[in-house]
Amino acid sequence: MERIKPRTLSGFMELLPARQKQFDRIREILEKTYALYGFTGLDTPVIESSEVLLAKAGGETEKQIYRFTKGDSDLSLRFDLTVPLAKYVALHYNELSFPFRRYQIGKVYRGERAQRGRFREFYQADIDVIGDGKLDIINEAEIPAIIYQTFTALGLNRFRIRINNRKILNGLFAALGLSEQAGDVMRTIDKLEKIGPEKVKAILTEDFAVPPPTAGELLSVIQADAPLAALRAYQGKNEMLDTGLSELETVVKYLGDFGVPQDHFAIDLTIARGLDYYTGTVYETVLLDHPEVGSVCSGGRYDNLAEYYTEKQLPGVGISIGLTRLFYVLEEQGLLNSDLPTAPADVLILPMTEALSPAIAFATACRGVGVKAQLYTEPKKFKAKMNYADRIAVPFVAFLGEDEVAGGVVSLKDMTSGDQVQVPLAKAPGWLRQRVEGRNQGAPVKE
Amino acid sequence: MERIKPRTLSGFMELLPARQKQFDRIREILEKTYALYGFTGLDTPVIESSEVLLAKAGGETEKQIYRFTKGDSDLSLRFDLTVPLAKYVALHYNELSFPFRRYQIGKVYRGERAQRGRFREFYQADIDVIGDGKLDIINEAEIPAIIYQTFTALGLNRFRIRINNRKILNGLFAALGLSEQAGDVMRTIDKLEKIGPEKVKAILTEDFAVPPPTAGELLSVIQADAPLAALRAYQGKNEMLDTGLSELETVVKYLGDFGVPQDHFAIDLTIARGLDYYTGTVYETVLLDHPEVGSVCSGGRYDNLAEYYTEKQLPGVGISIGLTRLFYVLEEQGLLNSDLPTAPADVLILPMTEALSPAIAFATACRGVGVKAQLYTEPKKFKAKMNYADRIAVPFVAFLGEDEVAGGVVSLKDMTSGDQVQVPLAKAPGWLRQRVEGRNQGAPVKE
Repeated sequence: MERIKPRTLSGFMELLPARQKQFDRIREILEKTYALYGFTGLDTPVIESSEVLLAKAGGETEKQIYRFTKGDSDLSLRFDLTVPLAKYVALHYNELSFPFRRYQIGKVYRGERAQRGRFREFYQADIDVIGDGKLDIINEAEIPAIIYQTFTALGLNRFRIRINNRKILNGLFAALGLSEQAGDVMRTIDKLEKIGPEKVKAILTEDFAVPPPTAGELLSVIQADAPLAALRAYQGKNEMLDTGLSELETVVKYLGDFGVPQDHFAIDLTIARGLDYYTGTVYETVLLDHPEVGSVCSGGRYDNLAEYYTEKQLPGVGISIGLTRLFYVLEEQGLLNSDLPTAPADVLILPMTEALSPAIAFATACRGVGVKAQLYTEPKKFKAKMNYADRIAVPFVAFLGEDEVAGGVVSLKDMTSGDQVQVPLAKAPGWLRQRVEGRNQGAPVKE
Repeated sequence: MERIKPRTLSGFMELLPARQKQFDRIREILEKTYALYGFTGLDTPVIESSEVLLAKAGGETEKQIYRFTKGDSDLSLRFDLTVPLAKYVALHYNELSFPFRRYQIGKVYRGERAQRGRFREFYQADIDVIGDGKLDIINEAEIPAIIYQTFTALGLNRFRIRINNRKILNGLFAALGLSEQAGDVMRTIDKLEKIGPEKVKAILTEDFAVPPPTAGELLSVIQADAPLAALRAYQGKNEMLDTGLSELETVVKYLGDFGVPQDHFAIDLTIARGLDYYTGTVYETVLLDHPEVGSVCSGGRYDNLAEYYTEKQLPGVGISIGLTRLFYVLEEQGLLNSDLPTAPADVLILPMTEALSPAIAFATACRGVGVKAQLYTEPKKFKAKMNYADRIAVPFVAFLGEDEVAGGVVSLKDMTSGDQVQVPLAKAPGWLRQRVEGRNQGAPVKE
């Protein structure tokens, strides 16, 4: 038979069992944390009609899209979870209750140039709160509290949530007489961290006709050590700036109520985050020891989620974690907690008698109390069986020989310590359960 | 602005929040049950190279596939989880330990003609045990035990697992002198339930030159009330039949050890299940009250998982549940347990004071003990807030007014009974947790 060489496409993450377990643990924490805040889980299709999915897209997005026809249909794979959400909310508007809080953790597709750490298929883990016409500012303060809680639950501590408000930037541009080139100025400022203040100033003055003193003033405000104080000097000069400042102060005040420690967030007026979509608070989250990674969780407030589908005004606020990339980074940096078990089973049961009923009954009893049990029944030598136990890194091995069966006990070997004990059959599942729960304590990330 | 009418493609299941919750609950039980048997969860890409994915496919499959090009790449969306598993095992052979037990619950794609209850994007929930060269027969007995456990955990009782062995059929054909037309006979028998014995007999005799007495004998054996007894009459006449019979008897014996009740499985010699792939035990699972639905969980033993990718002999046994279709059927038949909560949150917190810190602190405390809490802070009238609580069907509403805050209590309203009590703030999260756990008891299906 002619054989095809098996391969997985580049840019598609395919994990071996132990790493998959680590990935799933992180995914579960995201899901659980989101749910604790009263978000409902959605699962929209991976494929959408191109007309619907690309209603808004253009430029870079459209080039990267996986688009194809099937029969008469022009189809595309989703490239984020926001556009499908907009479609969902517009389509099911009458059946939903607002504020509508949803999370979605799902795969999205972008045909980017393949390179290390870049993925063409990757998970995004999003939450959004959508209002009908209006949405209270407190939602903009709760979002960073959720970011804080999520990253803390993962086991991360060395991270910081950067917060800004788009109204402040736009208001500041207006106050400085830069309204006309606001878009260009915003884009240039967005590069500050990458290219530095000198180059930003040069671009502003040379390419966009910003007077050098104005460029200097702008840069000194947005880079000020005490940004709120610096902004207060402009109060009363521009209404939008005033509104933005008031929103930012409200968000910061509530952040304290939500229990986000001072050193885990910072006002950062240099954060712009894209151009058209966001209208209020914006967020970025950086790993303090790995700034080169960029933001691992970003989002913000927007005024019009679904304007391409409906005339309803649907303001909202949301964030997205690039889960596949985050996992890749955590692994690269050696931050995954390797103390947590990754074996498929908690206990590998080795029957050593002809009759299998005692081993089967024991496996059933283990599963009954939530202990993951695998029966190993292949006719192999003892050494091969123990090698298998080692290779799958199973925490416990259970031996059931003639003596054990006759004595109503089971021999349990702790594969980490090497200790072996005999435990009465009836007590063994509980014995295992207790120890397995202990082994599974701890966060998936260890800094 | 010109608007695009939002729509979801036909054949793609997109659920409203409450139904999504019901779906997720079923999915979680599948996942949890599979894991209890020591299967490791995998998550392979949705897109594969067409060359790899279609190495084996042909005919019907190839027509239904979502296939497209991106740049120079010929790509396809997976149409099942078995081919990706074969690729995975062949590709990662050296890094895996055998027997390799994996489950995967994921979306697959088939561009079928759209019709009611047929899906183009749907979840399959698969388990497979793969051996390296050999695989013990006990695995073929454990699989129906897992089916039994899974369906029981879902809350189903009125189902039956039908078991056959392909070696018996092939051996029987040989013993009756039908080896040459074995494939045709197998295909015809597969239609027995659909078209009835008369038509099967007619096709066998008229189209495939089976002598009428032989056709009659074949039909009487495979439809016998006591199939094992009927088969024993042929013992010694054909080696393959003898092997198959012995395997079937072994599987049935172990099924008792695994605790599968007699009335939940049946030997059924009329089950053929496809042609080339399966080589030993085969399974189908039917809902006794809904035979029209067909098999909701099928699978079997195969000798060569990955022959298109590797020369390694990789025998295995596995099953697949068509989760999306199962959910659709359960809902259609009104079998989903509507007593279980489907709200995004367990408690909706209504702050009735200017300062929000008490409400925020209470929300944080609830989340700390695993109670899903949503803060409702939109400036609406009381009635609108309660309408919202009703619409999302939240089990509890918490009121925090001046009196409550001053008294260190919170008023908790049970939205099912209408009862309202005041509980000390410190005790309220635990109070809620206990009741919420109670509400979540019970299986997702209620027959």
